[in-house]
Amino acid sequence: MMIYPVVMAGGSGTRFWPLSRKNRPKQLLALAGDGPLLAATVARLPPLAPIARTYVVCGPAHAAAVRRMVPRLPARNLVIEPCARNTAPCVGLAAVHVLRRDREGIMAMLPADHHIAEPAAFRRALAGAARLAGDGAIATIGIRPTRPETGYGYLKVGARIPGSGRHPRGLQPAWVERFVEKPDVVTAARYLADGGYLWNSGIFLFRADVILEEIRRAMPVLGEQLAVIEASLGTPAYTRTLRRVFPACPSISIDYGVMEKSRRIAVLPAEFGWSDIGSFAALAEVRRTDALGNVAEGEAMIIDGRNDVVLAAGNRPVAVIGLEDVVVVDAGDAVLVCRKDRAQDVRQAVEELRRRGREDLL
Amino acid sequence: MMIYPVVMAGGSGTRFWPLSRKNRPKQLLALAGDGPLLAATVARLPPLAPIARTYVVCGPAHAAAVRRMVPRLPARNLVIEPCARNTAPCVGLAAVHVLRRDREGIMAMLPADHHIAEPAAFRRALAGAARLAGDGAIATIGIRPTRPETGYGYLKVGARIPGSGRHPRGLQPAWVERFVEKPDVVTAARYLADGGYLWNSGIFLFRADVILEEIRRAMPVLGEQLAVIEASLGTPAYTRTLRRVFPACPSISIDYGVMEKSRRIAVLPAEFGWSDIGSFAALAEVRRTDALGNVAEGEAMIIDGRNDVVLAAGNRPVAVIGLEDVVVVDAGDAVLVCRKDRAQDVRQAVEELRRRGREDLL
Repeated sequence: MMIYPVVMAGGSGTRFWPLSRKNRPKQLLALAGDGPLLAATVARLPPLAPIARTYVVCGPAHAAAVRRMVPRLPARNLVIEPCARNTAPCVGLAAVHVLRRDREGIMAMLPADHHIAEPAAFRRALAGAARLAGDGAIATIGIRPTRPETGYGYLKVGARIPGSGRHPRGLQPAWVERFVEKPDVVTAARYLADGGYLWNSGIFLFRADVILEEIRRAMPVLGEQLAVIEASLGTPAYTRTLRRVFPACPSISIDYGVMEKSRRIAVLPAEFGWSDIGSFAALAEVRRTDALGNVAEGEAMIIDGRNDVVLAAGNRPVAVIGLEDVVVVDAGDAVLVCRKDRAQDVRQAVEELRRRGREDLL
Repeated sequence: MMIYPVVMAGGSGTRFWPLSRKNRPKQLLALAGDGPLLAATVARLPPLAPIARTYVVCGPAHAAAVRRMVPRLPARNLVIEPCARNTAPCVGLAAVHVLRRDREGIMAMLPADHHIAEPAAFRRALAGAARLAGDGAIATIGIRPTRPETGYGYLKVGARIPGSGRHPRGLQPAWVERFVEKPDVVTAARYLADGGYLWNSGIFLFRADVILEEIRRAMPVLGEQLAVIEASLGTPAYTRTLRRVFPACPSISIDYGVMEKSRRIAVLPAEFGWSDIGSFAALAEVRRTDALGNVAEGEAMIIDGRNDVVLAAGNRPVAVIGLEDVVVVDAGDAVLVCRKDRAQDVRQAVEELRRRGREDLL
C-alpha cells in the first residue's frame, strides 16, 4: 500500500499580517527560517513518499507560487480548487484524484503551514499511522502536550488498539473517544495533568476509498458532488465540471463534517517537535533565539529586550528598546507592533485596513 | 532699548532618531505639529521683535534649511558658526554681531527647539525679563514647575528684586541663588513642594555689552578670541577670521562657563505652557491626544492602546495593538519601537547604527 501525501495549501490566514497577504498566505512564507513552509512540508516527506506521489491542493491565486516553490512537483499532482470551500470538499477532491490513480492508495493529509523540528520522527509517525489507515481506520496523529496550550484542539484518547505493531511506551495507537475544542487555560492544565489528551495536529491518514465512503455517509450531498467530479476526471470536461460543481459544495471542515461523526478514528501519539505556528508569538518555538529569548531577523536591533520577536523584513533597521514580550514586524509597506499575547488580534488591524479601503495591503 | 532675539539653532540632537538626522536636527522637525520648531520659534516673536531684529545662529550644514524655513530672515541676521562649540562661543559670537549694530541692544537667547503653548504670555515674560536685562542683569526665565520633572535643570530662587515693575502674584523677579543640576525624583518632588525652585528654561536675556563683559571676566581666552572676530566684523576678512578663530574657542556651555559664576543672574518666573520636548515621550504634552492619551500621526492605527506615541511618518500604515506607554516611529528608512520611559535611550540605537557603519541613517 502506497502513501500519497496531500499537502493542503489553500489557507489564506491573516494572522501573519503584514507579512501575509491575500497573494502571499502563511504557507508561502519562510516563517520557520528554512524556506517557505509549503516547500519545507514537501521536502521532509522523502524517503517515505517521493515527490511523484505527493499532491498539493491550493487555490488558483497561489498555483503559480506553488509551482515556483515546488518546481519538481508533477503537473497533475497540483490540484487546484476553483474557490475555497474549507477542508471537507478539499479532502474529497484530493481523494477522487488519488483513488483514480491507486484504488488502495493511502492519503496523508498534511497542513502546508506547520513546522516539524524532527522530520525523521515525523516520517516514522506517518508510517505508523499509515498502517492503521491501511486497516481501514481514519488515523490521526496526536501530539503529546508539553504545556497547557489553549490555542490547539485536543483529542481524548480511548481504548488501546491491539495488535498494531510495536511502539515506544506511551505512544501506542488508540481509538479517539472524542474531539475537544480549544480549551480555556484551567481545562488545558487539567488535560495536561490527565495524560489522556493529545493535541490535534490536523494530520490525518486514510485510504481514499474509506474517506469517500465516510463522506458519502456523513455528507451525502457532497458525496454526490464528488461523484460528478470523479466521472469527469481524466476527460476534457474536468476543469469545466469542477468550476461548476465545486463552488456549490458545502463549506465545512473535514473535522466537523466527517471526523467528529465517525466511529473509526484512530490516533497515533507522537513527538516530533511539532508546531502549527499559530501566530508571530509562536516563532520563538521554531526559530533560534538569543540568550534573552529574542527572535531577530534582518536589521533588527533589540536593546534591553526580552522574549521579543522582531522581524525587519523591510530591509531597513528596526530598533526596539526596553520592551519585553512584543512582536515587531516591518514588512516594507506596513509595520505591526503588538503585545505578544495579543498576536491573534492582528486580525483587528486587517479589519481596520479593510474599513479604510486599503485592500492593497491585505 | 531694543530686543534682539537670537535663536540658537546649532543643535544636532539624536534623541529624535529616526526622525532627526545629522542634516535634519530636532529644530528643523515639526514635532509640535505646527511647522518646524525653528520656524515656530521665530514666528512667535512679533510684535515684541520684528524679523528684521531677529538673529538665527546655526552650523553650515543647516544654513540652507534655515533660509528655506525662515525665508524672510535678513541675510545678515543668519550667523553661521563654522563648527559646533557649545553655547558660550555661540552667545559670544551673536553678542559681537548685536553690539556692532546697537551698543545698547538687549539679546534674548532662545533655544530653537522648544514649544510654547501661549505665545502672548511668552512675549510678556520676555518683555519683563528685558527690563531686568536693561538694568544690567543677566535675566533668565524660570518656569513654575507643575510636576516633579527630573529631565530639567532648576533655578533656586533667592532674594526678591525690588522696584522692577508690577508682576502677577508669585511671578515677581528675583536673584538666582544657584543653578541646580537635573535632580532625582525624590529631590524633584522636594523642589516642587518647596516652591522656591523654577525650571531653567534655557532662555536668557542680557545686554550685548554685559554678556561680553561677563565672558571676558569668566573666560578671558574666549573674550580675546571674540575681540579678534569683532575686529574683522564688517570687513572682507570676517569669514576667514571666523573660520580660523572660532574652532579654537573652548567648547563650553554658557551656563557652565559664565552663568553659574556670575553674581548678577536674575530670574523672572513665568507660565506660558513651556516644553523643551526632551524626547518622543514629551509629545503628549504638546500634541493633541485622543481620549486614551494617544498621539497618532499619519497612518497610525492604535488598537487597544493607551498613552502611546505613534508617528507613521513613512507614508505607510503602522498598526499598534494592545500596548501602553510605547513610542513607535516609522521614519520611512528606519523604525523605532521604544518604551516611553526609555525614550532618552534612543541614543543607544544611534550608537549601535554607528558601530554597524550605517552613517547613512544618522
